[in-house]
Amino acid sequence: MARNVSQKLVDAHLVGGEVTPGSEVGLRVDQTLCQDATGTMVMLELEAMGLDRISTELSVQYVDHNLLQTDEKNPDDHLFLQSAARRFGLWFSQAGNGVSHPVHQAHFGRPGALLIGSDSHTCAAGALGMLAIGVGGLDVAMAMAGQPMYVTMPEIWGVELTGEVPDWVSAKDVVLEMLRRHGVSGGAGRIIEYHGEGLENLTAMDRHVIANMGAELGATATVFPADDAARDYLEAVGRGDEFERWEADPGASYDVTEHLDLSGLQPLIARPSSPGNVVPVAEVQDEEVFQVVVGSSANPGLRDFAAVAEILAGQRTHPQVSVDVNPTSREMLTDLITGGWLTQLINAGARLHQSGCMGCIGMGQAPATGRNSLRTMPRNFPGRSGTEEDAVWLCSPETAAAAALTGRITDPLTLAESHGLSAPRPTLPERYSVNHGMLEPPLPPEEARNVELVKGPNILSLPDFDPIADRLSAPVVLVMGDDVSTDEIMPAGSRVLPFRSNIPKISEFTFTRIDPDYPARAAAAGPHVVVAGANYGQGSSREHAVLAPRFLGLKAVIAQSFARIHWQNLANFGILALEFDDPAEQEHITAGDTVELDGIHEALRHGSRLTASIGGREVAVHHRLSERQVDMVLAGGRIPLAARST
Amino acid sequence: MARNVSQKLVDAHLVGGEVTPGSEVGLRVDQTLCQDATGTMVMLELEAMGLDRISTELSVQYVDHNLLQTDEKNPDDHLFLQSAARRFGLWFSQAGNGVSHPVHQAHFGRPGALLIGSDSHTCAAGALGMLAIGVGGLDVAMAMAGQPMYVTMPEIWGVELTGEVPDWVSAKDVVLEMLRRHGVSGGAGRIIEYHGEGLENLTAMDRHVIANMGAELGATATVFPADDAARDYLEAVGRGDEFERWEADPGASYDVTEHLDLSGLQPLIARPSSPGNVVPVAEVQDEEVFQVVVGSSANPGLRDFAAVAEILAGQRTHPQVSVDVNPTSREMLTDLITGGWLTQLINAGARLHQSGCMGCIGMGQAPATGRNSLRTMPRNFPGRSGTEEDAVWLCSPETAAAAALTGRITDPLTLAESHGLSAPRPTLPERYSVNHGMLEPPLPPEEARNVELVKGPNILSLPDFDPIADRLSAPVVLVMGDDVSTDEIMPAGSRVLPFRSNIPKISEFTFTRIDPDYPARAAAAGPHVVVAGANYGQGSSREHAVLAPRFLGLKAVIAQSFARIHWQNLANFGILALEFDDPAEQEHITAGDTVELDGIHEALRHGSRLTASIGGREVAVHHRLSERQVDMVLAGGRIPLAARST
Repeated sequence: MARNVSQKLVDAHLVGGEVTPGSEVGLRVDQTLCQDATGTMVMLELEAMGLDRISTELSVQYVDHNLLQTDEKNPDDHLFLQSAARRFGLWFSQAGNGVSHPVHQAHFGRPGALLIGSDSHTCAAGALGMLAIGVGGLDVAMAMAGQPMYVTMPEIWGVELTGEVPDWVSAKDVVLEMLRRHGVSGGAGRIIEYHGEGLENLTAMDRHVIANMGAELGATATVFPADDAARDYLEAVGRGDEFERWEADPGASYDVTEHLDLSGLQPLIARPSSPGNVVPVAEVQDEEVFQVVVGSSANPGLRDFAAVAEILAGQRTHPQVSVDVNPTSREMLTDLITGGWLTQLINAGARLHQSGCMGCIGMGQAPATGRNSLRTMPRNFPGRSGTEEDAVWLCSPETAAAAALTGRITDPLTLAESHGLSAPRPTLPERYSVNHGMLEPPLPPEEARNVELVKGPNILSLPDFDPIADRLSAPVVLVMGDDVSTDEIMPAGSRVLPFRSNIPKISEFTFTRIDPDYPARAAAAGPHVVVAGANYGQGSSREHAVLAPRFLGLKAVIAQSFARIHWQNLANFGILALEFDDPAEQEHITAGDTVELDGIHEALRHGSRLTASIGGREVAVHHRLSERQVDMVLAGGRIPLAARST
Repeated sequence: MARNVSQKLVDAHLVGGEVTPGSEVGLRVDQTLCQDATGTMVMLELEAMGLDRISTELSVQYVDHNLLQTDEKNPDDHLFLQSAARRFGLWFSQAGNGVSHPVHQAHFGRPGALLIGSDSHTCAAGALGMLAIGVGGLDVAMAMAGQPMYVTMPEIWGVELTGEVPDWVSAKDVVLEMLRRHGVSGGAGRIIEYHGEGLENLTAMDRHVIANMGAELGATATVFPADDAARDYLEAVGRGDEFERWEADPGASYDVTEHLDLSGLQPLIARPSSPGNVVPVAEVQDEEVFQVVVGSSANPGLRDFAAVAEILAGQRTHPQVSVDVNPTSREMLTDLITGGWLTQLINAGARLHQSGCMGCIGMGQAPATGRNSLRTMPRNFPGRSGTEEDAVWLCSPETAAAAALTGRITDPLTLAESHGLSAPRPTLPERYSVNHGMLEPPLPPEEARNVELVKGPNILSLPDFDPIADRLSAPVVLVMGDDVSTDEIMPAGSRVLPFRSNIPKISEFTFTRIDPDYPARAAAAGPHVVVAGANYGQGSSREHAVLAPRFLGLKAVIAQSFARIHWQNLANFGILALEFDDPAEQEHITAGDTVELDGIHEALRHGSRLTASIGGREVAVHHRLSERQVDMVLAGGRIPLAARST
């Protein structure tokens, strides 16, 4: 049977389950990555599991999130992560090397491999014909321990690309168009596979941009074929010998199909405060802009920075705008220097920051109160920037550069006319800089065994996890709307992230973006329930969004629907994720209502339907847990379950 | 009469008082500078005074301290400062342009001019034959309003330099040697004037390094002649026409004299946690190092960065060390690129940060708990780095580079042998990059008048200042030792500095480095007194170290002696600064003792001696206030005094 690339990738890694959309499959994991904001928890999980050495083909610990070091917590964590990487046999990438996803692609990307990462943008590696999936930290820990990764088999969504993007339009606009059409949950339960002759005009780094923001569509993964573009990329990073062709068979079909004509695209922008609020730039022209940020995993290519540089070259950025440039990596910095682009950026007025995620995760670069900030980043959830009343817009490098010059939201086509500019076409080097010395390779096992974990005073072991009771009678402490992101459940940013290795402390920030009193009310209530609308838990993969409310007593979330990674994290840590049979039932629920659930054990073991009493009303709900997940939830989570089986 | 350079500079600006060490003189101010951490308060003071337009030759507002933007407060302040610069007629240098002192020297430094700045390292400009003095913000505000600046006339300390520094020794070691000899109050009440044939081998930027850390010696100013080195520098920044020769007359003498043979120097280092704890590097060799930071106003020259780059070139920094590089300015970044040095640094493993003060003011780059951090910065007061239990050492770029390679404190001479390196001798360009577009010039008055101040929600007007009572009966709330710095009185760093435009809020951090309960106890006590040892208030010029405790009720400080700027700030804001006649009296005082002072008004007006009852003992104390300052203190400070006279 003719197979598409996604099916081939799944088949090549299948170790259990049935390849039918909706049922759980187990997949063999080749590679894993962690970043530092989620990685400390993963390393503590490896320690709790008593692991001696990882058994993946390769695993890498990156430090790219918590770079500001406003006190000892972040540098203490960096040393802890380095010691853990040495102890367990991982590669280590220290602070300053750059953003995990593009660095991983350059050093370790391999067509046909399966990569999981404790970062939701791990999916970017799909650009090279990999199956790359963002998951919770515990799933990464288990994979390093040799277990398969489990995922609900998605539908394959074939998006046929034709044509070529016009001048002043680039890869970011392609994925923004997908978000304009389908919104932030349009990709839920799907792998997006791009195909068609339009691919010819998209480089591997263009595809990386598009695959990265598949996370914003809620997709399980984004897959591109490993074709000539992947080969060219691997050659450019000095690993042409690792190229392997992965393409769809002639006549391959898809579960869902779509067509996107690249030549019909125009510059697009996501308004505050959701990546799904996409409109043409032309529609919002002339809004005043006070900050422009170029960088992050969403536009990490040398081309993206070089394009901005060539637009700004020889000019002066608007004096009202802080033009913040976050180079992707140590290696790209040197390429920006060689190409003359860094000098162009600096001379024009750009403010050069350290390589890493920076403002994308609220690690500095917060905008002024209520002032528009245009960013080439992937997310603009409310407050994620660090500023409570923020106004963050997401756009392409071209649109960002235009605003940097004019101080207003400006369609790059308008800029081209007013400034007499031609579209940037930077000439990229045939070979990218590759710094082989910057990554610390795994220690040999005999040496690794003697490494002690270096724990600063803020690094605490995991709390205990009690199993779920058969009967729940607990108040609803919070009722939320649709599309609540993990940034709202558990804020990131420079104030909160330093506590990521300290669950009791970080729990004090749980849900505070939505309701500052939640931590106090939850702690007072003890066992409790929260209620939410559709797509609950979208965004980042952080398992702190489960660990922290669980620490405060959260036993169940009842929602209209869940985003994939968060749903998996809830199961991993033994919180019951229930969905309304009839979404309209949510309207009747208010905070303070009591939820009663009886015979939970029996109901989970034998079926998917339960009846809850909520505020005295009978409400039909269901779960989507696999048998494996039911065992976990009943045990109190995956760690106690694993402990029990040893 | 033959005059030295300092006397000529004083004479050229004298508008009142007698040029006798110890008596107050009034000096005409040509230029002022503010940085952002102190500048918001200065701008609020200009607003409170109802100023229309400044009357200095030129004044500049820089943004170089609060660059991290972890929430809206810092960017809100940046916009406020920009609006205030436009409103009052200042130049404005936005975030990303770089550290105020070297940028100011490059764009505005002029031999013979008098510069004051609301930053203690303003003294660095003495490198060019200027009289440059760090003062409290209110002194800067008053100077912009056209008033003279007042200072106790210092002694002139002539330091004769002979010889040339050996290989691997540089300007930083010269000033570290001064600190080794004389400690952190050795320069109190003095202008240090360097002279002698040894000057020939020190460039203007070498002199800038030495003048900068005159602040750490407690000196009022550091003065170098404006000779060929100053001319070469001005030519290199494209302003050779502004050169004017200022040299000592033949036969000029000094109040105090000293000799320093440069050829006898060796690499030196200040141990934690004082710039005065200086020892030879060779004595502390092999201590483990986890961080190296290159940058700040103390080693801001292109040469300093290029030297590090040439030592690291082609090698790989030690994997345990975070090598943090803070380029001085936008302009220097481009020079580092052109010279190939930036690529050398990045390839070797350096982590490149934004231009500005950064970790020097605890704005990021905090070291791990208890782990040694070697820095080319000027200060290492306890906790200033952002880490409570820090271990910060101060050294030259050469010594920093050696540790970056070995992971241990290493005498560069040892490194030279072990690595077969010759001493770095970077070839500097004849012309430095000068970016004329990066500074925003003052608006014309008619335009300026229409500018509105842009105040974010965290920017509060100044509190009211009540006059001092004739009788004080108040408890001693805190008793401290010697050399308490303003970093301990009012911490800086990323957690506290964002509140610098909000006195009620920032007061919650007062003295917390020394005693976390002080704010609560002080607020409970209301009017109260603190007691300290020698050199109280050394370090930064921040007037928050006066405004915040005053807000909490501080009425008097009784100390063995005061550091100059803080002493002046106390008078400016109406807090009584008293010194023990017999320093040994301090031993008898404990927190909780009651201080009784009667007839304060009369005693201040007619003499300098008072008798206090402290814990029942009679204690003789005195003040050193000028008549002008007595008027201020009686009025409640310089602002209410000025208001009264209008």
